[in-house]
Amino acid sequence: MEVGLIGLGKMGLNLGKNLIDHQHQVTAYDLNPNAVVDIQQYGAKGTTNLSELFLSLDKPRVLWIMVPHPVVDSVLSEMTPLLEKGDIVIEAGNSHYKESIRRYNQLKEIGVSYMDAGTSGGMEGARNGANYMVGGDPEAWAVVEPIFRDTAVENGYIFTGKAGGGHFLKMVHNGIEYGMMAAIGEGFEVLEKSEFDYDYEKVARVWNNGSVIRSWLMELTEHAFSKDAKLDQIKGIMHSSGEGKWTVETALDLQVAAPIITMSLLMRNRSLENDTFTGKVVAALRNEFGGHAVEKN
Amino acid sequence: MEVGLIGLGKMGLNLGKNLIDHQHQVTAYDLNPNAVVDIQQYGAKGTTNLSELFLSLDKPRVLWIMVPHPVVDSVLSEMTPLLEKGDIVIEAGNSHYKESIRRYNQLKEIGVSYMDAGTSGGMEGARNGANYMVGGDPEAWAVVEPIFRDTAVENGYIFTGKAGGGHFLKMVHNGIEYGMMAAIGEGFEVLEKSEFDYDYEKVARVWNNGSVIRSWLMELTEHAFSKDAKLDQIKGIMHSSGEGKWTVETALDLQVAAPIITMSLLMRNRSLENDTFTGKVVAALRNEFGGHAVEKN
Repeated sequence: MEVGLIGLGKMGLNLGKNLIDHQHQVTAYDLNPNAVVDIQQYGAKGTTNLSELFLSLDKPRVLWIMVPHPVVDSVLSEMTPLLEKGDIVIEAGNSHYKESIRRYNQLKEIGVSYMDAGTSGGMEGARNGANYMVGGDPEAWAVVEPIFRDTAVENGYIFTGKAGGGHFLKMVHNGIEYGMMAAIGEGFEVLEKSEFDYDYEKVARVWNNGSVIRSWLMELTEHAFSKDAKLDQIKGIMHSSGEGKWTVETALDLQVAAPIITMSLLMRNRSLENDTFTGKVVAALRNEFGGHAVEKN
Repeated sequence: MEVGLIGLGKMGLNLGKNLIDHQHQVTAYDLNPNAVVDIQQYGAKGTTNLSELFLSLDKPRVLWIMVPHPVVDSVLSEMTPLLEKGDIVIEAGNSHYKESIRRYNQLKEIGVSYMDAGTSGGMEGARNGANYMVGGDPEAWAVVEPIFRDTAVENGYIFTGKAGGGHFLKMVHNGIEYGMMAAIGEGFEVLEKSEFDYDYEKVARVWNNGSVIRSWLMELTEHAFSKDAKLDQIKGIMHSSGEGKWTVETALDLQVAAPIITMSLLMRNRSLENDTFTGKVVAALRNEFGGHAVEKN
């Protein structure tokens, strides 16, 4: 199938090569000429001119946007004058599902079918077999399913049947990921503060072989400890990139009691601080009512 | 190796057969004659008389206790007069690590080496390849390692090098399990209360293929939804069998901030109630200060 690929960052470049490996015809666009040359050398057509991309594709077009989610709207407004009725636009970044529904409705007005595709598996997945959660029109899905099937791992894609459903599912996936990672982290902290002297790489390895908590995250844990036995090289600061927060906000909107996912986000926030104002207030109050000692700055 | 197996419940019987499959000589003891006949037919010697078990084993003996943790002490007190210096006792149930340390010290006084082995993988694991976390004396470990290696999955056992370290590790394993399961549960509840109409079996399947949260627990989730698409047949009551609580108690003792594991236990407790007194008190207070409506019994 002929695919117009918009965005040749780490994810887009790997996806482009994955598509080419599966005999799809890729025409790629990026502002960065080096990335364009890279994909051309792998067998794609390439351009740094968006109009040229549109002209070179047979209609109706299939356009796959793989850009960071803050620039999706600017890419879309540049694309909109060039789009024609019947075109299909796939947005495979980490957008908020409500943004995806809004974009779906906007493009529907000009007869363009918009698909939201949550993508998991990272760069390695984009290159060799990704995981996709896709929302949008069933008619468009029937057209584009082959490119998802070919670039995913086996059984690694799902069509959810409604605009926004792909990015919603990816958001919840990430929320679950927050909770699972926090549980693993806490478990190792209990080990670390205990009277025992465990080899954490070996612990993670045994937990990956036949135990109930075997998982890809535990495999990554094993790998991390294999490089740095006590993780001395890194600080316990846990940044987050937004989808955990979206899951918590959504759970609040839907009145779902989701304390595990919520708490894992709050503990990430806590990890960003060296000291907290909460702590100062509570310490001050203990001192006020009970004369309990405070630790001074 | 010659092994005296004490306890032929679901776990013990499967372990006995697993040992026999690997050319170990099993002499088994249980009060239930049917279980003894079952293991005899599989190739073990068997008895319903504990003294007979001890008499039939070459010294020093290797004794593997596989009984529910509330009866470990009574089994041990029955065994103690029969034990001799140099014997090795393995206790492979779900005991609290402090109990295991106490028992280790008691048996050390009579020259018997006590090993605590946390076992994961259930009946299927006991039969075809279990997961073991073992604490105790290194000298005893050198003797008994073959029976763990042979009955475990590949790389599925660890010797932690200190009495209690096996059951402590198994306890923390279960604590992590509580948190991971709660995160998965919350994620599916967000999906269930959303505007989307997901097929949960398909969702779990796609999450098992190439996503970050792929795991044995997600495979079990897929299996559960394959039998009952919305889990309509079961209630959301989450019992617990103690090791999550032990993990939380240990985290409190060690002053570890472990809110995810703790909250997953508290939410299990909440699930045991149809209504809560907390809820009544908060509803009453909202009514008292703000005239907010309460729902009457």
